[in-house]
Amino acid sequence: MLNEPVCNALYTADYVLTQNAGRDVIRKGAVAVAGDRICCVGHTDMLEILYPEARRVDLGCAVILPGLINSHTHVSMSLLRGYSDDKALMDWLQQDIFPREAKLTPELVELGALFSFAEMLRTGTTAFFDMYMLSESVVRAADRIGMRGLIGESVTQYFPSLAADSFERYCDVVRGLADRLRGHKRLRAAVLPHAPYTTTPQMLRDCHALARELDLPFGMHLAETQTEVQGCREAHGLSPVAYCRSLGLLQPNSTFFHTVYADEDDIQLLAEGRCAVVHNPASNMKLASGHAPVEAMRRAGIPVALGTDGPASNNAQNLFRDMYVAALIHKGHALSPTECPAQFALDMATRNGAAALHDPYIGSLEPGMRADFIALDLTGPNMQPVHNILSNTVYAATGMENKLTVVDGQELYRDGRFLTCDYEALCSELRERVQAWMKH
Amino acid sequence: MLNEPVCNALYTADYVLTQNAGRDVIRKGAVAVAGDRICCVGHTDMLEILYPEARRVDLGCAVILPGLINSHTHVSMSLLRGYSDDKALMDWLQQDIFPREAKLTPELVELGALFSFAEMLRTGTTAFFDMYMLSESVVRAADRIGMRGLIGESVTQYFPSLAADSFERYCDVVRGLADRLRGHKRLRAAVLPHAPYTTTPQMLRDCHALARELDLPFGMHLAETQTEVQGCREAHGLSPVAYCRSLGLLQPNSTFFHTVYADEDDIQLLAEGRCAVVHNPASNMKLASGHAPVEAMRRAGIPVALGTDGPASNNAQNLFRDMYVAALIHKGHALSPTECPAQFALDMATRNGAAALHDPYIGSLEPGMRADFIALDLTGPNMQPVHNILSNTVYAATGMENKLTVVDGQELYRDGRFLTCDYEALCSELRERVQAWMKH
Repeated sequence: MLNEPVCNALYTADYVLTQNAGRDVIRKGAVAVAGDRICCVGHTDMLEILYPEARRVDLGCAVILPGLINSHTHVSMSLLRGYSDDKALMDWLQQDIFPREAKLTPELVELGALFSFAEMLRTGTTAFFDMYMLSESVVRAADRIGMRGLIGESVTQYFPSLAADSFERYCDVVRGLADRLRGHKRLRAAVLPHAPYTTTPQMLRDCHALARELDLPFGMHLAETQTEVQGCREAHGLSPVAYCRSLGLLQPNSTFFHTVYADEDDIQLLAEGRCAVVHNPASNMKLASGHAPVEAMRRAGIPVALGTDGPASNNAQNLFRDMYVAALIHKGHALSPTECPAQFALDMATRNGAAALHDPYIGSLEPGMRADFIALDLTGPNMQPVHNILSNTVYAATGMENKLTVVDGQELYRDGRFLTCDYEALCSELRERVQAWMKH
Repeated sequence: MLNEPVCNALYTADYVLTQNAGRDVIRKGAVAVAGDRICCVGHTDMLEILYPEARRVDLGCAVILPGLINSHTHVSMSLLRGYSDDKALMDWLQQDIFPREAKLTPELVELGALFSFAEMLRTGTTAFFDMYMLSESVVRAADRIGMRGLIGESVTQYFPSLAADSFERYCDVVRGLADRLRGHKRLRAAVLPHAPYTTTPQMLRDCHALARELDLPFGMHLAETQTEVQGCREAHGLSPVAYCRSLGLLQPNSTFFHTVYADEDDIQLLAEGRCAVVHNPASNMKLASGHAPVEAMRRAGIPVALGTDGPASNNAQNLFRDMYVAALIHKGHALSPTECPAQFALDMATRNGAAALHDPYIGSLEPGMRADFIALDLTGPNMQPVHNILSNTVYAATGMENKLTVVDGQELYRDGRFLTCDYEALCSELRERVQAWMKH
């Protein structure tokens, strides 16, 4: 027993949704934490006997579940929440979003990221996969606040970008980020070309080679709109997925974002490549991209994870909303109430997020897993009665029920307080800096 | 100036979304209340001068808006929240919902209603249109807690029901309810046959005659599913809307719920009849009913309001979620990001709800209107920055930001406290009674 980790905290609650392989739900359950890992999950009675010395945190009328994983987002775009809505995609991007983004600074990107992280901690997300510009600033924000994440600099063929004036310089930026984060406990770099339609075939091959060389995950927006599919067929004679296959991008280290348009052949290719796909239901609806074939991808064995996309097209960073939207829209679209059941929605936001972030130690509450978990208060009128705790979690929770967010065994949010950031100061800074930015 | 009502309270906040005809948004705005009515809405500076003696309630960093109107629900079904999900409609109803409902008692119906009202007050709904059984119990609950509502006993051709053993007895129940509520400040009765497929043509004619005789609103589920449309065409050779027209039901006192399947001719008929329609986006998705043609109905001049449907098919009574879902699904379905913009979503939940409830004094903040309003806190991370307060209200709010709910000038909910019910006692009673009910 010498090497047995010492349990230093025991979190107990009325329910534990383990999200383990058997999807066990424990009534009167407990999660035992040893440092940054979970050492035991089980009935409170039993764990109290096993760990009599542990600090005890009784969450009472609550459900403990794995921290949610936001597998595709652009966190710094919180700065542009509500800045432009209800517009056609190209008008939205070209008239409103791109001109604003051209005036971003590293300080603004960091501020926007911090603000999204505060929203994530508030609403029960513990890990994210971010794609944006000036990613060094996102790293600083995540490091400060204590979240887990996969972070990468987005690249297109159009230079200069905010971070690099050529593709060679971009590769240097990625190498620098990878170096800086090597051995980091919570953060890791990724290689993130923007999309097939904003890059060249050679860039995409080079990006994947760079990812392999540095042993990093590779990610890209893929097959998000009908326009993209049409353009890809015209330019390359292939669907976007088949085009990626032709370039050797369909590998187990690859995660594709959106993937709204994938036919049976495409789905087969993605499954054979052992790629992960990230579904962004709210964004796909708001930008009118379409309905991703998530059930068909699931049946093919593809891990389908869940993302919010950026706060300018969602307009939040609250995965509880996206679970709910996913569970609803696929039923309505397929005219089948058995599509995308509650368990699949929660799997997308937890276990499958582990695959999308290429981290096998997150997404469920089991011994040996990282101690990343949250707790929803069940005393509000929307969370009672509890006939089925899974149903209440997916179909009734708003995300605002979350009262505890733990990452790596550290409490980052609890009962209205942000424990690793001065939230009031952050709000003041946001107001002032956004106002100044809008004047340019 | 003798008859000028005395302003007894002045509510101020950073923003006021008036929802008046011009949809004015006031920065640093105020709502002045005189008894149960609004006497003035405008800039805080001005109203402070006009009403120097009024009790002042400064809500600070918040937006005041009209209380939301839930125009179609079955409030007592909160008892069955999460009891059964992800099932085909007929399995859901026949295996799970109907057998449970057969064992309802007046006490359970009242308890379920109270619990839904607590959720509505918590999340910013001030008025509702309820259709259920044992409606006398719903009246008692609404009376106790102080909400505004239109309440009716649902009737089908299958007797005995929980409230009546014949159609004649049902009519007596409605007369009794109408008598009891005549002159009530906040509650009014409605005549509510369940649906075309559960009633006879003669019953529907008689129901509408009864509504006219008693000067009550008439409401019915209509054209909710493809199965219903097909059955109606087979039985009557008409679409459900045309069938209602043939029975003389398309009148200005009529409100139809769901109305998912309405073609151009149907929409024309509803518009000519000056009927209101209530859209239930979350329920329509969850039960896989389909996408209602809300934009086409709006263009035809039909007031389209918003409802949650019952908590067993939503699974909440939080209209902020339904505004969000409505604004998303129609964009995705039409593949057009300009469908169902934020303003239309908020109109459905406010102004158009006034039409669906046949009450011209609710749904906007203007002098002479009933003092029914709410206030969303804007200090949380999802509600900042404020580029556009309408966008944040519709696309970013969860409903849990609500910190004040006022009906008829009375504060019913404020900062976590329910002011007209003992919420803790209500929760205990719910737990005990639901447990006992489930044992039968």
